Amino acid sequence: YVPEGVKPIIIVLVGLPARGKTYISKKLTRYLNWVGVSTKVFSIGDYTRRQTAATPASGGSQPEVSTEGGAKPDEAEEFNRLRDLCAQLALQDATAYLRGGVSAASSSSAAAVAPAGQLATFGEVAVLDATHGSRTRRLAILEHCAAAGFSAFFVESYCDSEAIVEANIMDVKVSNSNFRDCTDKEAAAQEFRERIRKHEAEYQPLDATVDGQLSFVKIINQGERFIINRLRGNIQSRVAYYLMNVKVGPGRCIYLVRHGESMFNVLGRIGGDADLSERGRLFAKRLAEWVDERTGDQSRPPLRVWTSHMRRTVQTAAFIRSPHTLEHWKALNEIDAGVCEGLTYEEIAERFPVEFANRDKDKFNYRYPGGESYSDLVARLEPVIMELERQSHVLVVCHQAVARCLLGYFMDKKHSDLPHIRIPLHTLIRLTPVAYGCLVEHISLNVPCVDTHRSQPLNIDATRTAQEALSTIPSHY
Amino acid sequence: YVPEGVKPIIIVLVGLPARGKTYISKKLTRYLNWVGVSTKVFSIGDYTRRQTAATPASGGSQPEVSTEGGAKPDEAEEFNRLRDLCAQLALQDATAYLRGGVSAASSSSAAAVAPAGQLATFGEVAVLDATHGSRTRRLAILEHCAAAGFSAFFVESYCDSEAIVEANIMDVKVSNSNFRDCTDKEAAAQEFRERIRKHEAEYQPLDATVDGQLSFVKIINQGERFIINRLRGNIQSRVAYYLMNVKVGPGRCIYLVRHGESMFNVLGRIGGDADLSERGRLFAKRLAEWVDERTGDQSRPPLRVWTSHMRRTVQTAAFIRSPHTLEHWKALNEIDAGVCEGLTYEEIAERFPVEFANRDKDKFNYRYPGGESYSDLVARLEPVIMELERQSHVLVVCHQAVARCLLGYFMDKKHSDLPHIRIPLHTLIRLTPVAYGCLVEHISLNVPCVDTHRSQPLNIDATRTAQEALSTIPSHY
Repeated sequence: YVPEGVKPIIIVLVGLPARGKTYISKKLTRYLNWVGVSTKVFSIGDYTRRQTAATPASGGSQPEVSTEGGAKPDEAEEFNRLRDLCAQLALQDATAYLRGGVSAASSSSAAAVAPAGQLATFGEVAVLDATHGSRTRRLAILEHCAAAGFSAFFVESYCDSEAIVEANIMDVKVSNSNFRDCTDKEAAAQEFRERIRKHEAEYQPLDATVDGQLSFVKIINQGERFIINRLRGNIQSRVAYYLMNVKVGPGRCIYLVRHGESMFNVLGRIGGDADLSERGRLFAKRLAEWVDERTGDQSRPPLRVWTSHMRRTVQTAAFIRSPHTLEHWKALNEIDAGVCEGLTYEEIAERFPVEFANRDKDKFNYRYPGGESYSDLVARLEPVIMELERQSHVLVVCHQAVARCLLGYFMDKKHSDLPHIRIPLHTLIRLTPVAYGCLVEHISLNVPCVDTHRSQPLNIDATRTAQEALSTIPSHY
Repeated sequence: YVPEGVKPIIIVLVGLPARGKTYISKKLTRYLNWVGVSTKVFSIGDYTRRQTAATPASGGSQPEVSTEGGAKPDEAEEFNRLRDLCAQLALQDATAYLRGGVSAASSSSAAAVAPAGQLATFGEVAVLDATHGSRTRRLAILEHCAAAGFSAFFVESYCDSEAIVEANIMDVKVSNSNFRDCTDKEAAAQEFRERIRKHEAEYQPLDATVDGQLSFVKIINQGERFIINRLRGNIQSRVAYYLMNVKVGPGRCIYLVRHGESMFNVLGRIGGDADLSERGRLFAKRLAEWVDERTGDQSRPPLRVWTSHMRRTVQTAAFIRSPHTLEHWKALNEIDAGVCEGLTYEEIAERFPVEFANRDKDKFNYRYPGGESYSDLVARLEPVIMELERQSHVLVVCHQAVARCLLGYFMDKKHSDLPHIRIPLHTLIRLTPVAYGCLVEHISLNVPCVDTHRSQPLNIDATRTAQEALSTIPSHY
């Protein structure tokens, strides 16, 4: 017997086309991987595109596009067969992923792509991204899960607002690769609306009475309302909470920035709680000017500025004035370097050569003695991400490792790459949500500063020389 | 303009009698105060009891008990008048609480009791505990909130399971003070069922269509299903998440225990990551025996044992075997004493006399330089509390300050008292939910150990002598 909370989970998306199922699948997967729950999307659309690659006339992301209406009987039959085959392949791959093996199906279906380089040896959550409109189909998955020892968790995106659906069709679907061969966007949109209508005929929304025994979250009109039924276990509960916090809609914008150059940056010392250098203070003034210029024409709302509890971030935000607001989060404090706090890389290499090499080997999981790892940092930053998802127009003034974790979330970086993201001082990073991801732009405020980035050296073995360990350290005084 | 997320909130309970409204009100208030959101319950029942103290014939907690059925017209009128007066007083007091003042009403109504000694100068959340069955009454509160600049958040407990309602009547209501004059429990239950039926006549549940503009959480059959509508702001979102995690039902049991005596305990040193002493190891063995004996007859499920990442808790759980399971939480690590890690109280008094006095002055908010405060610890422990609320049969092997924070939550201790809770070594603390609170029992395993408790000294001024600062330190080697 395996308790519900520990079983692998298949998250089954439910919803008509243009309800944001792919958006939700990708975003949820990104979040779960970031918090350390190995998760992968299996999108029926990807399987279909692969299977129908030889028949380019098929325009939609899912084979059902031509199963009704004008299709001839044998054509419809062929598409039904194809749809069932793809659903079967996706479920087979999801099952293999959760069991830690590689199924025969997955070798033939490169379409089941792992999220941005995440290489889990076995999965904890598989996300099935398809319409799953008929109750029969959903119950078949439920039975499969029961037999395999998985728990099935349904996430429906239900939308009866014509405006939301229309916006979705134009924003995402028409500019989507599904329609890359259509030059006429309105024709593409028309075809898509047609396809939705066909699905509507057989669509059975999740119902609290009929589906009362299922575990599900029903998202109504993009988060206006939620129905949450029979949650089981910690992961289902966190998924529901995440979905409740995620805001969609235009105009969201988040800025990340490291504190201005500190005295410790100049000296090449890590950690500590140093004051800003003179150049750091200059940056703080420029930042305040930039913030005012940005909202100068009153067309943009004021920024919520968050800092850590450390002097260098508080000083960096010190010149920012009303109407912008300031908040200090202890969760935004820099990674605790434990016994290495306040040391230079040279001193670390000399005093803790084995520790230094271990950190270079697996920087994400390495925990400083008496301090923290990047993995600890991600756990500490989870509430910050939740709040960022709820907000627009936030400027986060933080630290190198903290900014890497936050950016790693937005950029869907795998854990092993996350601690190596380059975050220069005196540079704003603007994050703008686009389609299924996030646009990242760097804005330099042109205030000179040191470079604090140390790349992974070639030699990461504990027996390496100090010179090898220090081959990539940035210059300092 | 005040953004929704920052406005004070009135949480308006909605639901028929015996739906656990008082339980939810108290539990939610305890949680919010623990995480640092000043919250107070205003229960119409308390106001009614005060107003009707002169007319002992009235048996119910709310005046509506006799407004229908056998009551004479003028009697019904009098009760309606009384009900409206009490609702008015409660709302007036809640408003004054959120504005940081004391209204004329509150001076005449001692019934509005602050949660367990919490003395907030102004409140962030007021909880109105009453039926609020009619839409008219709810809209009146909504209008009041709009005029006062508060946000109204409705929490309905809806239950159509006869079994749950019956259990609730017998468990809570019949043994409740409302019926202290009834010797016949069945008669009391009967009277109560009668009262519910009267309320049912005018009860209008929250409806996603009609009440679609309100912010609400509708809890259906004790958490089987939730409808969550138009959440606004961080606190509403956290309240919804908390309600989703809270499990009700019998048989829940949580054990807290500190690690066995460590070498640092023996030496009177704080913090660090020391091994267990010989007596500590003996305790670890006894603990494993006790865990086995507890489940010896197979009638009780195995325990989930949680430790911190520190040696002394891992070693304390080291002899516990299958079928019990072990998990290690970094969040359970002891408070980080920063520059004071590894020091004795004598050394702290000598090296950091002003810090030492500041800590004694406000132990909850005091943050060790380079370390943590109890307040930081509560933030770090919030996910642990969420998971404990979801679980039964957990044994938490932790540390003095951590156990104080966890116990502080379960015992509804105010922040200023929390850091002074006595948590002896080698003693299990069993927590069993009862009615509106939690039964706390100490189980000594009879293994000798030092006492590590240091009470607040009389003199907490920075100018005190070392002798005064050390007047309450426990003896050590």
